[in-house]
Formats: sequence, structure tokens, C-alpha cells
Amino acid sequence: MKTTRRDLIVGSIAASVAASQLNGQSTGTEKFVRFQKGPVTSYGIVTGETVEAIQGDLFGAHKKTGAKHKLGEVKLLTPCTPSKVLAVGLNYKSHVGTRKPPSAPEIFYKPITCLQNPGDPIIIPKDSQNTHYEGELVIVMGKKVSHISAAEAKSAIFGVCCGNDVSERDWQGGPNKDLQWWRAKGADTFGPLGPMIVRGIDYGNVMLQTRLNGTVVQKSSTSDLLFDCHAIVSYISQYVTLMPGDVIYTGTPGSTKKMNPADVVEVEIDGVGILRNPIAAA
Amino acid sequence: MKTTRRDLIVGSIAASVAASQLNGQSTGTEKFVRFQKGPVTSYGIVTGETVEAIQGDLFGAHKKTGAKHKLGEVKLLTPCTPSKVLAVGLNYKSHVGTRKPPSAPEIFYKPITCLQNPGDPIIIPKDSQNTHYEGELVIVMGKKVSHISAAEAKSAIFGVCCGNDVSERDWQGGPNKDLQWWRAKGADTFGPLGPMIVRGIDYGNVMLQTRLNGTVVQKSSTSDLLFDCHAIVSYISQYVTLMPGDVIYTGTPGSTKKMNPADVVEVEIDGVGILRNPIAAA
Repeated sequence: MKTTRRDLIVGSIAASVAASQLNGQSTGTEKFVRFQKGPVTSYGIVTGETVEAIQGDLFGAHKKTGAKHKLGEVKLLTPCTPSKVLAVGLNYKSHVGTRKPPSAPEIFYKPITCLQNPGDPIIIPKDSQNTHYEGELVIVMGKKVSHISAAEAKSAIFGVCCGNDVSERDWQGGPNKDLQWWRAKGADTFGPLGPMIVRGIDYGNVMLQTRLNGTVVQKSSTSDLLFDCHAIVSYISQYVTLMPGDVIYTGTPGSTKKMNPADVVEVEIDGVGILRNPIAAA
Repeated sequence: MKTTRRDLIVGSIAASVAASQLNGQSTGTEKFVRFQKGPVTSYGIVTGETVEAIQGDLFGAHKKTGAKHKLGEVKLLTPCTPSKVLAVGLNYKSHVGTRKPPSAPEIFYKPITCLQNPGDPIIIPKDSQNTHYEGELVIVMGKKVSHISAAEAKSAIFGVCCGNDVSERDWQGGPNKDLQWWRAKGADTFGPLGPMIVRGIDYGNVMLQTRLNGTVVQKSSTSDLLFDCHAIVSYISQYVTLMPGDVIYTGTPGSTKKMNPADVVEVEIDGVGILRNPIAAA
């Protein structure tokens, strides 16, 4: 039975988080969310369908507070608040297609104002004609690093989450394209992130899929990345210092399609979760 | 008499700030710096050669604390700590040259980690062959804005400062150029900013000049900008929300040259100040 848009929209975030725990690795992992309950925003650790608030530094010393909530009864936010957002282009052979594969990771920036919470809408700008999804594995940094090796990168990565590197293709590559991808990749709401940060999984070999209105439109293992997470972090750090909480969208597999208002897009990574966002007109 | 490198290096920041107050408009203006004195970092208001610390919100309610220091006895920092850094390319006819002038501002991002204090070195990355200065007027936002008009932009701008949009030309446009300008414009230390934020001047018509080892290498009035400050802010805000403290480098005039270790580069804007940075090897 095909999932309808209504099914997707009424599906709770809790269900998506819980479902993700049935897929892939779930032993020895830790799952962190950021959430709002009433006027209070907290980080929390997820166990089953419960989140327990923590206090302290997400990337350093922190402890559980004892304050527990059902996941379905809190508002999930982007799981961290990065000081900057980086992304990799052309990082799956299936997405590069007939183009020349890059000899080094092709990096670009998204502004932090484009970040969007799980469940909140991706808003198509008024003059946009061609806004696409890009389902991606996202690296969350845990340490301040500069000039590190790929081997050192492993311990500098805090965890991973799902991301949607929303992209306006006409602004990015059309006949009247911008010089740089600032709007194409950076318009408000073009950076959904979440639902949680997962530590302790083998993020170098997990299945990623994107669904548009319930239909699978992208599917790939992260083992197909041209430059893996450790290579990406090491390379960026040769030029740009990375800070705890900084996130790196690692690239999208296969092809992408235009999204329209009232669509629902989901990015699911086995063992990491489902990032679901409706599409809305400006 | 030609200024020597030594003269420039030994010249104090205080002298450069004081000198800037003798040029251009100085009536009805306010001058803000961020500075370190011992272990304490503060914002402050500059009067003559004195800075008085303020407390509160730089972009909202704040008051003088009575704690005064001589400018020469504090360490000046970037005058604000932006949540993001934007920049405009090809925004002076003299820099566009034979290229087609853009039909809208051509925007890109610099990461906040590239920001550098007045007086601190611009570090040439190890594998860089062609790192240039770009002297620029920088807009400092005072309000959170989205979808505003050029008329509304005026009241959303807090003030202006000097900036150097340091650019690695081979990475930006050489035969092996990157897909996007992330390294070319974003390597650590590629964003000198300061020495102070000035409010109350007619930033649409002030003289900007860049000096390399004391020789004037760029000179233009900001009235030559293809897209003025208000047009830039309005245009960006149609797509990307701007926050208080966000900065926008507005573009560079004329041509640029390679900088080498031990050089000193200065960006001076009449009535705004002199941003001076030495160049160092990695």
C-alpha cells in the first residue's frame, strides 16, 4: 500500500525516531536530540521512546538531569546549533554521472540561518522554479581541529545525523545561475537537520534513502562516498578550523527532483533516524 | 618619504585609530570597538585616544561602565562576533573590468573562523601560491531582517568598518580552481575586520584605499559601488535572514596583487579607520 501524504504528515516525530531504532545498528550507540518542552530548550539522550534531558556541554562533560519526556510530547529541534555549516558537492559516483570526478572534496558553505528543525517546513522562495531535495549523511564535529590527518579525524567526529541539502537548481546551474551557490544552497529553511545525533555506529557503511511522498527516490550506502567522512574532515581542516558542533553535509547520491508545496520529503539513514519535512510555498 | 615596513609594523593601533579620526566625517558619529584588557574582553566606545567599556547589548540597550583605557594599552579584536559573514563579488566597475557587470549582487559566504583581528597576521596557507588583498567597506547589521526594502535597509544597518576579503586567486579562478570559493575566500585568517564600527557617517560616499607596504594599491570612493549598501542588504534579505552583528563585505575596487610574508597591508576608509595586518607564512 502506497503511503499517502496524509499518512506522512500525521505520522509523529516520535514514531520516526522509534522506527529508526529498529533499523541497523542499535547496540552500543548513543542518541542525542535537542528539544523544546514548553518554554525550555534542552539537549537530551534518547532511549526507546523516551528522552531524558542532560545538562552541561553536549561535546564535553554532561550528565542526565532525571527529567524525562515521551518523544511524542516534545518539539524536536536541529540536534545542535553549529557555528558553521559545510557541505560536499559531487561526492557519490552515482551523482557525479558523466562529470569528471573531483580530485579533492569540493566544499561549500551553507549559512546557519538555513537550518531547519525536523518536522518544520522547507519553504520554496517566491521566485524559485526548481528546488530539489538532496538526502545526505551529516557529520557533527566534537572537537576544535586544524591540520589533522584522516586517522585523527575519527576521534574528532562526535556523531552523525540526517540532513537535506536543499538546492535550487536554476540558481545553482541554470542559464542565469549565480556566480556562487549562496541562494541555491543557502536560502532560509534549505538546511533541514536531525532528528538526532547518533554516536557509535559505522557511519562509513550505512544505508541512506530519500523518500518523496513515500516513494524512494534516492538510495545508496555511505560506503559509496568518493571521499569518506574522515577524508573530508581532514581535508577541510587543512584550510578551515572546525569547531565542536560544526556540521558537514557529505554529499547526495543518485539524481534529484523538484519538490512542490504540500509534498513531504524524508531522509532516512539506518540506525540514525528519519528526517521528515513538509514543503510549503513562501 | 616612503613608509618602510618597519615603520608600519611599529606603528601602534592607537595611532591608526587616532589618525582615522582626523580624516573625513567626525561629527555626530559613534565609534565602537571590541577589546581585550588582561583576561577581560569588552565592547567599548572610542573618544579620541580613549576607549570606555560598555555593558549590555552592542546592538540594543547598553551603557558606559566608566572603565576607561588608552587605546594603545588594549588589544583590539574584531569589532563584533558575527553569526555569519557574507561578501559581494564584482561590485566595482573598476574591478569588473571587461567582465559582464552582474544584474544583481553576486553574494558568497566566508566562514566565521576566517575572521582576523586588527594587527594580527594574515597567514598564507602552505600550498598557496597567489593570495591577494581586497580592501573593502564592511556593513555591520544591527537588526534581524528578512524581506526588507532598500529604504528599510538603512535603519537595519548598525554601522560600517574596514575589511580585507583576502582571496587565493589560483583556488578561486586558476586552471585547477575549486568548484566553489570555500578555500579561496575562507581559509583561516582570510577575513581581517576592524578596527572599529563607525555609525553616523555617509558610508555611501567615503574614500577607501588599500596600501601594501605603504604604497597605495587600491583607491576608490564607495559611491562607485555598483550595488550600494542598502541594495545589497535588501537583496540578501529576500533569501537569507540577516542577524544583528552579521557582516557583509561589499566588494573591492580596481585590481589586486599577491601578498608575501613580511608584507604589511592596510585598508583605510576615511572616517572609519585603518585596518592593518602583517602577512606571515604558515
